[in-house]
Amino acid sequence: MAKYIIGVDYGTLSGRAIIADAETGRELPKVCDYNYPHAVMRKELPGGKVLPPDYALQHPQDYLETLSNIVPDVMKSNGVTPDEVIAIGIDFTACTVLPVDKEGTPLCFSGKYNEDPMAYVQLWQHHGAQKEADEITRLAEERGENFLARLGGKVSSESLIPRLLKIAKDDPELYRDMDEYLEAGDWIVEQLTGNRFRNSCDAGCKSLWHVKEGFPSKEFFRALDPRMENVVEEKLHSPVLPIGSKAGEITEKGARLTGLNPGTAVSVAIADGHASVAGTLKDAAQGQMVMIMGTSCAHFLVGTEDKIVPGCFSVAMDSVLPGFYGYECGQSGFGDHYAWFVNHCVPEEYTQVAKAKNMDIHQYLTEKCASLVPGESGLLALDWWNGNRSVLNDSNLTGLIVGMNLTTKPEEIYRALIEATAYGTRKIIDTFEESGVPVEKIYATGGISQKNALAMQIFADITKRPIRIAASRNSGALGSAVLASLAAGTKAGGYDRIEDATAVMANLTDIEYQPNPLHSAFYDRLYANYTQLHDYFGRGGSPVMRDLKQIQKDAVLKKAEWNLTEHLAM
Amino acid sequence: MAKYIIGVDYGTLSGRAIIADAETGRELPKVCDYNYPHAVMRKELPGGKVLPPDYALQHPQDYLETLSNIVPDVMKSNGVTPDEVIAIGIDFTACTVLPVDKEGTPLCFSGKYNEDPMAYVQLWQHHGAQKEADEITRLAEERGENFLARLGGKVSSESLIPRLLKIAKDDPELYRDMDEYLEAGDWIVEQLTGNRFRNSCDAGCKSLWHVKEGFPSKEFFRALDPRMENVVEEKLHSPVLPIGSKAGEITEKGARLTGLNPGTAVSVAIADGHASVAGTLKDAAQGQMVMIMGTSCAHFLVGTEDKIVPGCFSVAMDSVLPGFYGYECGQSGFGDHYAWFVNHCVPEEYTQVAKAKNMDIHQYLTEKCASLVPGESGLLALDWWNGNRSVLNDSNLTGLIVGMNLTTKPEEIYRALIEATAYGTRKIIDTFEESGVPVEKIYATGGISQKNALAMQIFADITKRPIRIAASRNSGALGSAVLASLAAGTKAGGYDRIEDATAVMANLTDIEYQPNPLHSAFYDRLYANYTQLHDYFGRGGSPVMRDLKQIQKDAVLKKAEWNLTEHLAM
Repeated sequence: MAKYIIGVDYGTLSGRAIIADAETGRELPKVCDYNYPHAVMRKELPGGKVLPPDYALQHPQDYLETLSNIVPDVMKSNGVTPDEVIAIGIDFTACTVLPVDKEGTPLCFSGKYNEDPMAYVQLWQHHGAQKEADEITRLAEERGENFLARLGGKVSSESLIPRLLKIAKDDPELYRDMDEYLEAGDWIVEQLTGNRFRNSCDAGCKSLWHVKEGFPSKEFFRALDPRMENVVEEKLHSPVLPIGSKAGEITEKGARLTGLNPGTAVSVAIADGHASVAGTLKDAAQGQMVMIMGTSCAHFLVGTEDKIVPGCFSVAMDSVLPGFYGYECGQSGFGDHYAWFVNHCVPEEYTQVAKAKNMDIHQYLTEKCASLVPGESGLLALDWWNGNRSVLNDSNLTGLIVGMNLTTKPEEIYRALIEATAYGTRKIIDTFEESGVPVEKIYATGGISQKNALAMQIFADITKRPIRIAASRNSGALGSAVLASLAAGTKAGGYDRIEDATAVMANLTDIEYQPNPLHSAFYDRLYANYTQLHDYFGRGGSPVMRDLKQIQKDAVLKKAEWNLTEHLAM
Repeated sequence: MAKYIIGVDYGTLSGRAIIADAETGRELPKVCDYNYPHAVMRKELPGGKVLPPDYALQHPQDYLETLSNIVPDVMKSNGVTPDEVIAIGIDFTACTVLPVDKEGTPLCFSGKYNEDPMAYVQLWQHHGAQKEADEITRLAEERGENFLARLGGKVSSESLIPRLLKIAKDDPELYRDMDEYLEAGDWIVEQLTGNRFRNSCDAGCKSLWHVKEGFPSKEFFRALDPRMENVVEEKLHSPVLPIGSKAGEITEKGARLTGLNPGTAVSVAIADGHASVAGTLKDAAQGQMVMIMGTSCAHFLVGTEDKIVPGCFSVAMDSVLPGFYGYECGQSGFGDHYAWFVNHCVPEEYTQVAKAKNMDIHQYLTEKCASLVPGESGLLALDWWNGNRSVLNDSNLTGLIVGMNLTTKPEEIYRALIEATAYGTRKIIDTFEESGVPVEKIYATGGISQKNALAMQIFADITKRPIRIAASRNSGALGSAVLASLAAGTKAGGYDRIEDATAVMANLTDIEYQPNPLHSAFYDRLYANYTQLHDYFGRGGSPVMRDLKQIQKDAVLKKAEWNLTEHLAM
């Protein structure tokens, strides 16, 4: 009998399930998706209560509905029976958190709290606790807390403790009534198994937890807010388990929800981006970087040491592969740059020719810029249209292009934007290596890696490293399945060691882009210029970008006033 | 009987004539144009002789043909008889020069020289003597010659002495056979009057002549090349007369050429850009700047003192108005920026909507960006798509835009480019004032000044000075007519004093853009950022722009090599 594993990937707007064959690694052809009925609640709660700005909430019922749809569907559509499924693994957006009671019931399900925004799921995009995040950063700086450096020197509002602090301060009753404040991934695992654990990935990357140091001290929390002194015992008390651990088995309730057999192994959850690593790397070894190339780009690096890398969002044991340190960096704008260009800057003539050739405009531009060689356009851009996450961690930075003349063509700008995103990745790689964390080889997954060969060649040329392309279009879900294979173990047809699991199940294409040393030599010269502008605009040499943002803010305020004056003058 | 004056403007590709009424200043409605049959000869001479790169020659016969067409035509089409014409004035592109014999016959007309490129007219755009220009600059630096500072520290290949030096070195027989090396404007005046003079404008701005110091010394010319020791007596010997002087009267030959009456007054020539000043300024007084706003932009300033202004191409007595010092600066790319944007960066959607609204795309973009307030876009650009002439005088500088984010719209970039050209003008104005030359009021002529009210308001806001718009679409030709009115003098129905002539004949609209102090306050903040980038990229703080140009040159060279390698590998 075949041994199948289900991987479930909870994204921002939908969840999807895939099935992988544990023995061959083959992914079955059908993937099942389900859109969350409430999507992201930004304006109001289901009952109509209006939300403050910067809120981004979700409804936990949507997650259960998703599970009860996609798991049966993915088995049925692939002709798999529950008997053939040996394990299920979950990955989930993070930090995406909710308050639950002792039984694991979300507090927003109760009549008492269904009008209370803070009782719902705070999605990773929720920025309602920015003030608290800044407060925690300041205090940690003052006290010289170790965790700060591991998080790139800044506690993000996209993390758990600031949100919990805000509840403690603004919604004390909810704080008191919650048994625990949980990552949604851990909550789903509890729904399936009846067991509650916190996973090492989210704990380490999003909750200030460290494999050796644990959570911050009572003294720290007391200094933050007296009500938070015992927050760990009171609201974060479930044990932290490394990813790949078995959280338990499908209960009767879990079986009703999913159609799986009771007793099926369930692994602890993992964050969605991090899960891609196990779905991509065949060798579980250090020095490998996985890039998830989409509208933004996430970089995950496998390491064996606990190093501080400037601009890295997080370094945590057991966050990407069990037994390794995982580092996470990212570029906040990536494919977004190319999309911006295509949506705002491509002349009619190009659009028409592309249409006539029956080509996507990206394809057409790529074809046109493929005939250029590195440096030929004379252009250089900074990839900061959406600010910079790594290594500068500054959302006030903005885009820049230099080198235009009267003959500069659209495809030259398009290529400059692709190159800029590659320089940004190289800056991240260089920063890792300067910090003593080797980066030997790059793996790429996500839309751009599969669609744009020219971009991938440029990335190889600029980073001066081979880039291997992942095969799965669902590497997060596949990674969850790989980790679940460890929860099943060899006895049930899975694996006991991560290296055995990835060797069979991680899924790579044969496509590997090799750096062209002739091109790399030119790109080294261009990158030296990128670095100069990067440091000048990004490291305090020039206040221009920040000042333009401030002028912009002031102008928008004044505009209303001026419009009013003009109106009165008429 | 009416008193009319003809103004003839010789441009790069055509000449045109207008008629102005000396008593009322009214311009008659018909303008006559004539395209030079040989246009600009870049590839070969009429006989087929191939030209070296960087050559740009013209045929003097074209100028005579132009004259004999447009002067009779402009009289006829406006119903003016030769009896009513009291004077004619000529402006001409400069430096546009040719060798002539004693009788004023161009050497290229002779069988001996009609295959010799250097015997033809070297148009202002001719860059065949760049090496010689650099040689003269070096020698002048070594010797500390005064004239260098008056020319912005650099002798241009678009000036007379380098071209004459090249002839002395490479074509000694031609050098020997020429009686004089003349500006084409002075040559045309000789054709009309039989008298040969050099005009103060071209002499001062293009031939190293100074009203008090004369030409450079014999020692200087000997050091440059022994053959040049006596160049002034030998090849530049005609007297220099101030603009507005009478060069003479139409001869019988001149009458046959033009249809004018013998005895009609003719003024000395003037350079075409400079002529606009007399056609625009009603008050002949210092502190007034005339901007000619076209694809590039020229700035002429009226001053009363001989000051050195960094980045100014020339300062010379009697170069814009008789009795005043004229300063010339310029922006090498101006409307070219807007055209580049429209040709390369406007999305199909915009083009379609503009078409549907039956609007020119410039109009449509202007309409869209009119609703923005200063600073609202968050963008800032450097106006260096075609390098920078004033004040940095560096053709290796390139364009830059900073401040883009994912919501940046085309009209925001368009507006940023308009603002950038205005910052460039303000930088010129600030440099004048820092050098002790006041700039009080701006006058604008040229296409953009009449077509784009938003751009003009932005210029007023950024320069913080009122901007008055010229009325004539041919302010150069009109300026020539104003100067010719002085050649006629009051006795013949003209004027004796420039201030009397301009008060009546210079032609302004009632449109004056007033700076909006609310907007100016924002623009001051933006301009501070412009200055920071201007100095960082332009004054040696950053080698990025130059380095990108060098990489580009190297890449283009390598490309051929790579293509060959790939070809061989196939």
